[in-house]
Amino acid sequence: MKKPGKSITIVGLGLIGGSFAMALKKLNPANLWAVDVDRGALEAARERGIIDEGYMDPQTPLGNSDIVIMCTYPGITISFIRDNMQCFKRGAIITDTAGIKVRPVREINSILREDLDFVAGHPLAGNEYKGLEFASGSIFDGASYIITPTDRNKEKNIAAIEDLVTGLGIKRIVRLSPAKHDEVIALSSQLPHVIAATLISGVDDYDTNLFEAGSYRDATRVARINSQLWAELLLENNKNILAQIENFEYNLAQIKRAITDNKPEILELIFDRVCAKKEGILTGSEKA
Amino acid sequence: MKKPGKSITIVGLGLIGGSFAMALKKLNPANLWAVDVDRGALEAARERGIIDEGYMDPQTPLGNSDIVIMCTYPGITISFIRDNMQCFKRGAIITDTAGIKVRPVREINSILREDLDFVAGHPLAGNEYKGLEFASGSIFDGASYIITPTDRNKEKNIAAIEDLVTGLGIKRIVRLSPAKHDEVIALSSQLPHVIAATLISGVDDYDTNLFEAGSYRDATRVARINSQLWAELLLENNKNILAQIENFEYNLAQIKRAITDNKPEILELIFDRVCAKKEGILTGSEKA
Repeated sequence: MKKPGKSITIVGLGLIGGSFAMALKKLNPANLWAVDVDRGALEAARERGIIDEGYMDPQTPLGNSDIVIMCTYPGITISFIRDNMQCFKRGAIITDTAGIKVRPVREINSILREDLDFVAGHPLAGNEYKGLEFASGSIFDGASYIITPTDRNKEKNIAAIEDLVTGLGIKRIVRLSPAKHDEVIALSSQLPHVIAATLISGVDDYDTNLFEAGSYRDATRVARINSQLWAELLLENNKNILAQIENFEYNLAQIKRAITDNKPEILELIFDRVCAKKEGILTGSEKA
Repeated sequence: MKKPGKSITIVGLGLIGGSFAMALKKLNPANLWAVDVDRGALEAARERGIIDEGYMDPQTPLGNSDIVIMCTYPGITISFIRDNMQCFKRGAIITDTAGIKVRPVREINSILREDLDFVAGHPLAGNEYKGLEFASGSIFDGASYIITPTDRNKEKNIAAIEDLVTGLGIKRIVRLSPAKHDEVIALSSQLPHVIAATLISGVDDYDTNLFEAGSYRDATRVARINSQLWAELLLENNKNILAQIENFEYNLAQIKRAITDNKPEILELIFDRVCAKKEGILTGSEKA
């Protein structure tokens, strides 16, 4: 079954794992295997030619894989690596895709076998759905990818993961410390999701046709989230997201006060600053 | 200069007025005129064939127009109609495009000549730019339009405006009272703009590349707003938008408390409800 050359195992064949499989297939790795608890997903993936073979028991694929890509919820990533520590091939690189980094990196490194290397990563890609049926190899096209290296990582292993994701279509890779990652992601991703969910919470029995206008639709696109995953991500990053929510509340209170006090000049000042910042963000990303 | 048949004047040749002109031109009205304080905009519009003639002095076009479309800021709409009341053609229909309705409708009706009819309207269309150079006849394609009739309006005049905007590509027209309009728009349009502006306010010196990920970009698309217009719209609708901000603050506090108290089951419950509501809104607008 095993062909000579580099072998890769994906653990967790949902939206992200499935998308990894589809994108990796095009790079033609010697062996591309998947591990999942859902036999149906594994069979569907094998029949569609997305993976070479699927396993519910991880022993065989882990024992033969040079690279293992964890695409499970963060808590499961930690327990899976801990429970299967003796199965990994000698010298294997393990990477993950979780939206939080501090605790997974700390806990996995604290128990990791000496010869293994955990290079944590986070693709800034995905969509508002979940499950293999919404997976797509193209979600990585032009996207950014955060790698959160530690002193324990070998530079050649970090480079191997960076080369791999570049091959998937990733346009730029940013290296951040795990702590900085969790801080940045609280503002750039978690806060917009919380805000979108809050906006939707306020809708009652209004004529829904009026809410398809651009501003409302765009502001709430990501409100349809994976509830269980997002509860875990937010609670895992509670200090950072609470700080961002409080900062948001403070900024909202400024606008509210200007309205309450009937101060057009303060509102205009706030909005002018906002426009300038928004331009800066757009220009920054267009330059890159 | 004047050709026989129905004549239309657009007052204010910015993003919305220019877009009206472009879309109306395709309907081939007998005469399509514009009034603006900006001679350059009028000349540019005439040279591009968007209007038949432009005027800085409104007397001639108003005196010969069957329909007048006000595309100025709401405060200017009121003062323009008041100051030029004696210029309007006998029996003319005046409509507007402002994002607030209660005060314009009340004040204009309180001073309007007996033979004139003010049919207030609000296209749920536009983009995040301002000025004639960003105008486009296609902004009305498939959009919704709110008409806020009063007892003073003649049904045939309401129907005339509805026919006109249907001809521009408007997909559905909703009739609401001015008060209901201002209440609905506070939630469906003003709150998302305020929230987008607040989100941007929180961005400092982070690597801007990380903020181009979908969730942040979509949530803040409308943050680049016309500061002066939006200050006027929010202050004019202060009671409704303050109520919506307070409702938003309350809902955000629920999520914040669930994070503070480390309650995944409450977060999941909130997000499950949000997903169901979002589905309902999507389904509602897809059905229509």
